[in-house]
Amino acid sequence: MIRVGIFGATGYAGYELLRWLQRHPQARVVFTTSESSAGKTLADVIPGPLDAPLIAPDDAPLGDVDVVFLALPHGVAAQMARRARGAGVRVIDFSADFRLATPEAYRRWYGHEHPAPELLPAPYGLPELYRALLRDAPLIANPGCYPTGALLGVAPLLMAGALTDPLIIIDAKSGVSGAGRVPKQNTHFVEVNESLAPYSIGQVHRHVGEMMQEAHRIARGVTPEIVFTPQLLPVSRGILSTIYLRVPETWSETQARAVYTAQYAGEPFVRVLPAGQLATLAHTTGTNVCAISVTLARPGLLIVISSEDNMVKGAAGQAIQNMNVMFGLAETLGLL
Amino acid sequence: MIRVGIFGATGYAGYELLRWLQRHPQARVVFTTSESSAGKTLADVIPGPLDAPLIAPDDAPLGDVDVVFLALPHGVAAQMARRARGAGVRVIDFSADFRLATPEAYRRWYGHEHPAPELLPAPYGLPELYRALLRDAPLIANPGCYPTGALLGVAPLLMAGALTDPLIIIDAKSGVSGAGRVPKQNTHFVEVNESLAPYSIGQVHRHVGEMMQEAHRIARGVTPEIVFTPQLLPVSRGILSTIYLRVPETWSETQARAVYTAQYAGEPFVRVLPAGQLATLAHTTGTNVCAISVTLARPGLLIVISSEDNMVKGAAGQAIQNMNVMFGLAETLGLL
Amino acid sequence: MIRVGIFGATGYAGYELLRWLQRHPQARVVFTTSESSAGKTLADVIPGPLDAPLIAPDDAPLGDVDVVFLALPHGVAAQMARRARGAGVRVIDFSADFRLATPEAYRRWYGHEHPAPELLPAPYGLPELYRALLRDAPLIANPGCYPTGALLGVAPLLMAGALTDPLIIIDAKSGVSGAGRVPKQNTHFVEVNESLAPYSIGQVHRHVGEMMQEAHRIARGVTPEIVFTPQLLPVSRGILSTIYLRVPETWSETQARAVYTAQYAGEPFVRVLPAGQLATLAHTTGTNVCAISVTLARPGLLIVISSEDNMVKGAAGQAIQNMNVMFGLAETLGLL
Amino acid sequence: MIRVGIFGATGYAGYELLRWLQRHPQARVVFTTSESSAGKTLADVIPGPLDAPLIAPDDAPLGDVDVVFLALPHGVAAQMARRARGAGVRVIDFSADFRLATPEAYRRWYGHEHPAPELLPAPYGLPELYRALLRDAPLIANPGCYPTGALLGVAPLLMAGALTDPLIIIDAKSGVSGAGRVPKQNTHFVEVNESLAPYSIGQVHRHVGEMMQEAHRIARGVTPEIVFTPQLLPVSRGILSTIYLRVPETWSETQARAVYTAQYAGEPFVRVLPAGQLATLAHTTGTNVCAISVTLARPGLLIVISSEDNMVKGAAGQAIQNMNVMFGLAETLGLL
Repeated sequence: MIRVGIFGATGYAGYELLRWLQRHPQARVVFTTSESSAGKTLADVIPGPLDAPLIAPDDAPLGDVDVVFLALPHGVAAQMARRARGAGVRVIDFSADFRLATPEAYRRWYGHEHPAPELLPAPYGLPELYRALLRDAPLIANPGCYPTGALLGVAPLLMAGALTDPLIIIDAKSGVSGAGRVPKQNTHFVEVNESLAPYSIGQVHRHVGEMMQEAHRIARGVTPEIVFTPQLLPVSRGILSTIYLRVPETWSETQARAVYTAQYAGEPFVRVLPAGQLATLAHTTGTNVCAISVTLARPGLLIVISSEDNMVKGAAGQAIQNMNVMFGLAETLGLL
Repeated sequence: MIRVGIFGATGYAGYELLRWLQRHPQARVVFTTSESSAGKTLADVIPGPLDAPLIAPDDAPLGDVDVVFLALPHGVAAQMARRARGAGVRVIDFSADFRLATPEAYRRWYGHEHPAPELLPAPYGLPELYRALLRDAPLIANPGCYPTGALLGVAPLLMAGALTDPLIIIDAKSGVSGAGRVPKQNTHFVEVNESLAPYSIGQVHRHVGEMMQEAHRIARGVTPEIVFTPQLLPVSRGILSTIYLRVPETWSETQARAVYTAQYAGEPFVRVLPAGQLATLAHTTGTNVCAISVTLARPGLLIVISSEDNMVKGAAGQAIQNMNVMFGLAETLGLL
Repeated sequence: MIRVGIFGATGYAGYELLRWLQRHPQARVVFTTSESSAGKTLADVIPGPLDAPLIAPDDAPLGDVDVVFLALPHGVAAQMARRARGAGVRVIDFSADFRLATPEAYRRWYGHEHPAPELLPAPYGLPELYRALLRDAPLIANPGCYPTGALLGVAPLLMAGALTDPLIIIDAKSGVSGAGRVPKQNTHFVEVNESLAPYSIGQVHRHVGEMMQEAHRIARGVTPEIVFTPQLLPVSRGILSTIYLRVPETWSETQARAVYTAQYAGEPFVRVLPAGQLATLAHTTGTNVCAISVTLARPGLLIVISSEDNMVKGAAGQAIQNMNVMFGLAETLGLL
Repeated sequence: MIRVGIFGATGYAGYELLRWLQRHPQARVVFTTSESSAGKTLADVIPGPLDAPLIAPDDAPLGDVDVVFLALPHGVAAQMARRARGAGVRVIDFSADFRLATPEAYRRWYGHEHPAPELLPAPYGLPELYRALLRDAPLIANPGCYPTGALLGVAPLLMAGALTDPLIIIDAKSGVSGAGRVPKQNTHFVEVNESLAPYSIGQVHRHVGEMMQEAHRIARGVTPEIVFTPQLLPVSRGILSTIYLRVPETWSETQARAVYTAQYAGEPFVRVLPAGQLATLAHTTGTNVCAISVTLARPGLLIVISSEDNMVKGAAGQAIQNMNVMFGLAETLGLL
């Protein structure tokens, strides 16, 4: 039985994590923390199905757990990771703090010094690409919600060296839980409802750094260049990424799809849809699955659509998948 | 041409007011204020169709206008009303500051002293009930969003002295714009979406004071007692109030409906639905109409359903209707 | 391992049932039927996470299963129940066919003769009220979605003989999945979205028959009279029922709540909320729980709010709970 | 006063048209037809604010009107257009029947012979591009909802000959009203809500034919090639099109935006947003405006985002704008 601590249980990702862990047959949640609601219980704070006592982060009994999940703001997470590693506890971090491989990249995208550079680099927790690096890892950087779907959507082509033009356009639409639980003007119901709002488009969203880093790592042939258009969608959860890529003019749709089915054969959490089906949010809501459709728009232009639940495969579910790999358990345990 | 000033143009009600006034053939908006965004324009602050320069409330040229609309927090509104009245400008106040007739009632429901008691009492701006009192009034208290639909829904029976039991149950559901534009936890998209959340139920919501005051004023026979169940609905605008009342056991549904059609004959903004139709939000969205259906649930128990757009008949539209009455214009001007 | 057949897997309730059964450690789904899509697979028909071959109902191998769930239209369900019982297979029926105890009541509410009167009466599958009758039952009538939440909300008071007036007002709001998957005008997205639509109010909705029957069965003292206001809510799932009841004028809220906590002590799927919390849809979405809040509106008038997920406690989850009871398993198996 | 007939008043576009025409100071609606609801009134059929008698199309008094709007299915519309033209009545057609210039193009995209080829070609009713052709036109083809926003979004660059690569990617998201009022599985609330569903992607959607025809007509330099990704969005109205185009590597964002502001200077219904603002649905909901933002994603790649209300600028509003031009009225009459 793996003993687990959750830091940041009152955010959307932490709450979702607790929900899934309660069904996990080999994990037991020992503590749940909240900076602002310590002393209360989860049911006091959130009108939902879960309950658990909330303790202050500083009071967390690190000696009683095997692994901690950090659902904390970036910057704060790295400091807690250092503390946990100092206590010999493994770490799965939801924040961006360990996703970029170098302190320089971190400074460039996050605008300040890395708070725990001695822990860099950490393996990037996308099991479908880096499974071998995650086994027994002391610290795993859980990928960003957008990069998860985007990278699973482009990886097979990159690894096949099939791009004929470096430009990859990712037109992504995310549910509002991705923006966090702290109320802001742009997450007010009336502002989101009945609208669709692009933001940070081009190459400025912080997830571009993470996507470019990983895309470069796996690409053969041309060095990919990513243009990213995030958009806030009036739904609670889910990310649909429509990805435009250039492939050889001679490729058929069947040929392109075969690259995906070959790459993901045997993967329990990637589902390549058959010809004639397009990925929708409904394909993956509430699951740890990334569903991918492959369509040839016209000779040489491929449209790959990737669907994921941003709270599951994009956050809590993938974190548990990483925990399963880290501890040598069956990868699907607690996730079906 | 009536010269108009709007205080609080960046809230939902103020913004809606500006939208309607731009189509009003006899009104011209001279200034729009914003406490927090003075110096910017409306289009800088809100991604919508409107634009106008925003000035600080203190800089408002009261000498240039005939009437001001106050879409301000309660407490603040009364102070601005005093200033405007001091300058000889008429006032239509969206806040609760002038809805209760006495400083004592205000203290009881709002918990502090009334900031401008010398202006009390002001006529209650529900033209269908108090039209004569609104003509040439220097100050009108625009009714609350919930009380508008609720009072129009119960008034005919109260005025007819038809209640056989004092208890009136009002089960009301409101769109989120009613909670204002300042982001709070309970207006976060993810908290509202796919939920329905009752709050302040029983006799504690501040609108109960206003509803009881007006119900008592118009009732014949028994003194009504209101129990009120407000609920936050995952829509942007609209209030549907389902009202349960006891009437004589001998009454037919036709007889009950006739009380309503008689009361509201000739009213341009109340629509009593024919037998077989139930009021829905869709009946009134985007209009200044209150739609009312009357159903006999069983002998002696009537279900009246009242629908209004909380931003129009429940706020900005009714304010313009009041302005039209105040200045002796056709009541429907700019509202069709 | 219980061998299960599902009739009607492409409707919302059947689909939800399959989702939960796939996680049930003691159940194995042997077949899934669809009248209109036989020969296809579930993933061909519905863009969601599940897949299973769909066979014609007539081809269902009844000899291979221990129990069948009937997620079929009323009328059709009773005929299939007869066939299953003839083959010695147990039945849990989602339709209304076995909820009313007599053919006369069925004729009155459903307008035609009962198709299998020899199977009446069947136990009413609300385990919190009738657990003892469900053990080893050959046929269980799974309750309607509205009656589940309504009856759990009123039962403690009725059993305590606490009503001082027979009238019970149930103002209920349901998500759209309750209206079924066949597209109709009133379930079109644009008609539902941003609206709230009452329908069949008073004492005409068919669920009134079922609620009255069960309320009469358990009530002590006055014979309850139910007035029911169903409303279509712009959410996919969930029912919130706001219930108004008269209790002795001397009762405190604490006293009233104690009746509920006593009644439901030890119930795994009923959660009585503490003072100060009101039940919302978010309390129960995705769970088999019914959450109940108890508020004294004023002396003698109680507001009980009951929240359930209409697809889980109101349909598929309760059916599995019934299966667990029927077969002597732990009642929570597969439902946490 | 222009005398107007509306064919197809119970569809979303026809209903919206009637709403706007009731405010138009120079138009009077003489009749409204409905194939399926003739003999009833609009308020009988649709729970909304409007009412009007519905007559059978065959009973429409063509002699009493100056212009008819056809909100009818394609194929049916062309036949009615022939009848109206035979009676000397002008026609503004919402269907696709007169948007393609030749019978051959129509056959290719719609799969059957054109029902009234003698009326081809008709001017394409996008006033911002073809104003001069619309004056006094006897028949105008009102553009499709998607092509309106897409063409306004690409036209300035095409007319400037600025494309450096023929490929234009249009990633478009539409509210559900665009799919019509007849209920289908893919417009069922539960299927649309909390999802996002691409359909007919690549070069197969019928609007591609219309977009390509018009893009070719106005382009200088390279012949554009359009790839189109329509997606069904869980909102009632609005289309947001994110458009990716290649421009010279030396262009600045300011330079690109200047092409748009120059092209649309003086246009009352196109709003080019200033630097730093991105177009959202909220910019245009309920208005006849198309809002456009221009962002340089990286050297040589432009992201143009175009927002429109598909029911107004994408249908009824543009039709009235066309009527105003056709009859020599001020173009904004009834549309502000």
